[in-house]
Amino acid sequence: MSERQQPLGPGTVLGILGGGQLARMIALAAADLGIRAHVYAPEAENPAYDVCARRTVAAYEDEDALAAFAAAVDLVTYEFENVPAATAAFLEARTLLRPGAAALAVTQDRLSEKRFVAGLGLAVAPFRQVDGAEDLAEAIAALGRPSVLKTRRFGYDGKGQVKIGADTRPDTAFAEIGAAPAILEGFVAFAREVSVVAARGPDGAFAAFDVCENEHRHHILAETRIPARIEPGCAEAAIDAARRIAEALGYVGVFAVEFFLVEDAAGQRIVVNEIAPRVHNSGHWTSEGAETSQFHQHVRAVCGLPLGSAARCGDVVMNNLIGDQADDWLAILADPGAHLHLYGKGASRPGRKMGHVTRVSRRAD
Amino acid sequence: MSERQQPLGPGTVLGILGGGQLARMIALAAADLGIRAHVYAPEAENPAYDVCARRTVAAYEDEDALAAFAAAVDLVTYEFENVPAATAAFLEARTLLRPGAAALAVTQDRLSEKRFVAGLGLAVAPFRQVDGAEDLAEAIAALGRPSVLKTRRFGYDGKGQVKIGADTRPDTAFAEIGAAPAILEGFVAFAREVSVVAARGPDGAFAAFDVCENEHRHHILAETRIPARIEPGCAEAAIDAARRIAEALGYVGVFAVEFFLVEDAAGQRIVVNEIAPRVHNSGHWTSEGAETSQFHQHVRAVCGLPLGSAARCGDVVMNNLIGDQADDWLAILADPGAHLHLYGKGASRPGRKMGHVTRVSRRAD
Repeated sequence: MSERQQPLGPGTVLGILGGGQLARMIALAAADLGIRAHVYAPEAENPAYDVCARRTVAAYEDEDALAAFAAAVDLVTYEFENVPAATAAFLEARTLLRPGAAALAVTQDRLSEKRFVAGLGLAVAPFRQVDGAEDLAEAIAALGRPSVLKTRRFGYDGKGQVKIGADTRPDTAFAEIGAAPAILEGFVAFAREVSVVAARGPDGAFAAFDVCENEHRHHILAETRIPARIEPGCAEAAIDAARRIAEALGYVGVFAVEFFLVEDAAGQRIVVNEIAPRVHNSGHWTSEGAETSQFHQHVRAVCGLPLGSAARCGDVVMNNLIGDQADDWLAILADPGAHLHLYGKGASRPGRKMGHVTRVSRRAD
Repeated sequence: MSERQQPLGPGTVLGILGGGQLARMIALAAADLGIRAHVYAPEAENPAYDVCARRTVAAYEDEDALAAFAAAVDLVTYEFENVPAATAAFLEARTLLRPGAAALAVTQDRLSEKRFVAGLGLAVAPFRQVDGAEDLAEAIAALGRPSVLKTRRFGYDGKGQVKIGADTRPDTAFAEIGAAPAILEGFVAFAREVSVVAARGPDGAFAAFDVCENEHRHHILAETRIPARIEPGCAEAAIDAARRIAEALGYVGVFAVEFFLVEDAAGQRIVVNEIAPRVHNSGHWTSEGAETSQFHQHVRAVCGLPLGSAARCGDVVMNNLIGDQADDWLAILADPGAHLHLYGKGASRPGRKMGHVTRVSRRAD
């Protein structure tokens, strides 16, 4: 379906694939703009249903349900990069899918993503394709130890990956990730992790939030801080990399690029780690910390509306509430500097993202 | 039902009577705190249904529906002061109603409200009870012309009132407001209108947003500006009046007190015009302009959670989008300083509140 050029304004029905906290926050932002959210997800209960105008509870492979969904909405977006390719293609043939299936195809496979980024002349960790334990042995020989074996698909929050240490056996490691098509990534000795959350509109308009610094614990984002400890030139390079990635993908919507920040005698430089074709946890600080939140920005971008100001309002710290950390809600509410966001999930299980808190030190214009 | 002292946290189901934009924005704020909104309203379609977890479509007099609603929620609040007294009493006997029926009873009748405020020693416009054209003639003789005849109940946005000019006949005027029980208010020569939006918790905690200045056009709020042009002592008096009103009502939740600001040789002084026992249009600026929005604050207050910071983030202007003003949404979205809020109403009818825009000039701490 050809791209519509008219902006989609108030009254638009925005279809969202996926019903987690990201879909929930997209739906809440859409509501501010008079746009109705129609959430499509397989779960009987999930965080997004509570705040959306319509819902379809069906499998992503259910073509009857998908066809009815496509007919009921003005466009479709999604909260996760693992939308099945067939689902994306089916929807894109029937309605506007933003970001498009092409961006999804590149970014949901670590190997194609790495090749794509390297093809733009951007630095990535050294990598090798791994289709079996034998490939892995060769790849380890080439890239050395330590290194990281990652499945090409369906990895997030450290799932689907295993560290190759001094004594790790290739066959054991390959079995551990489910003997799935994989890549081996060489170790990057990084000083810290930073990311750029940005938006691109269908007209090519581009707006990036300030580079943020991310701290992971147990492979899950724990804290984001803005400003990041990064040299101005390096921050510019990171934002430029994000822009080039978005341009090359013909991307429409908000996305994140995660970088390793390497510091050595030559100074700082960035290495692209991962692209997330969606709103991103490292952009949650924007809800109170920027003039436009990443969720509002995503709705603006996919609807072809003018992008909002990405200026930040101060110095910001965002902390995820993982598992039982969310049980501290009363203390957080009593902190006058804290903005609490909870996702409406029932039980707090270990490792589950239950909510987040932002704290903003306001600054002058 | 006795007041529960435990704070109502995540997972709480908050019942809301009324389904307009105020209910919508309360529901959106509740979602941020992991609280589910159950909206009860008579309309088949309305702005709040699109963002709430549950809805009951029924008349406010439908006791079966009210009983089921009371059983399905943890507490009930409302977006409008004209909740029928019987409805409030019915609900209060079955669940927690915040603000309570007593506050509602006082504020939904202009006569009882005036007497209550005057009883606190606060200045109000001179007033007389008017139950017929004859009363009105006597009241006009006492209070003079110009003056304003207002129905005791169900007035808002200038509805249910008529100005008594030099030539207005009492019988005509009384007929014009539907020959309903009314009051005549003497004319107050005010310099401007200001309001205080504040919250009180069940434990007596109190937090007021900064005094704001309101400009009405055709009896409908057009613009709110913060800071208001008011002397510090007078601003303190306004906030103190709001606090005393809330204390005397045993009020729980967010409310607004509208004042006339009178300026004469003796300086500035405030005259209480009206109390609104609910979130209020003159508090819409808080969404981006204060650390806690009035909607979040209302949810915190009624749920017995700690009140949030009411500090403002800068100088703020809020403009209502009335009728076809909302058709300018594209231009507003293109203004990097504007935060657009649309209520999801379909057709823009003259005089209909379709949305609002806030603009914040950030300032340092």
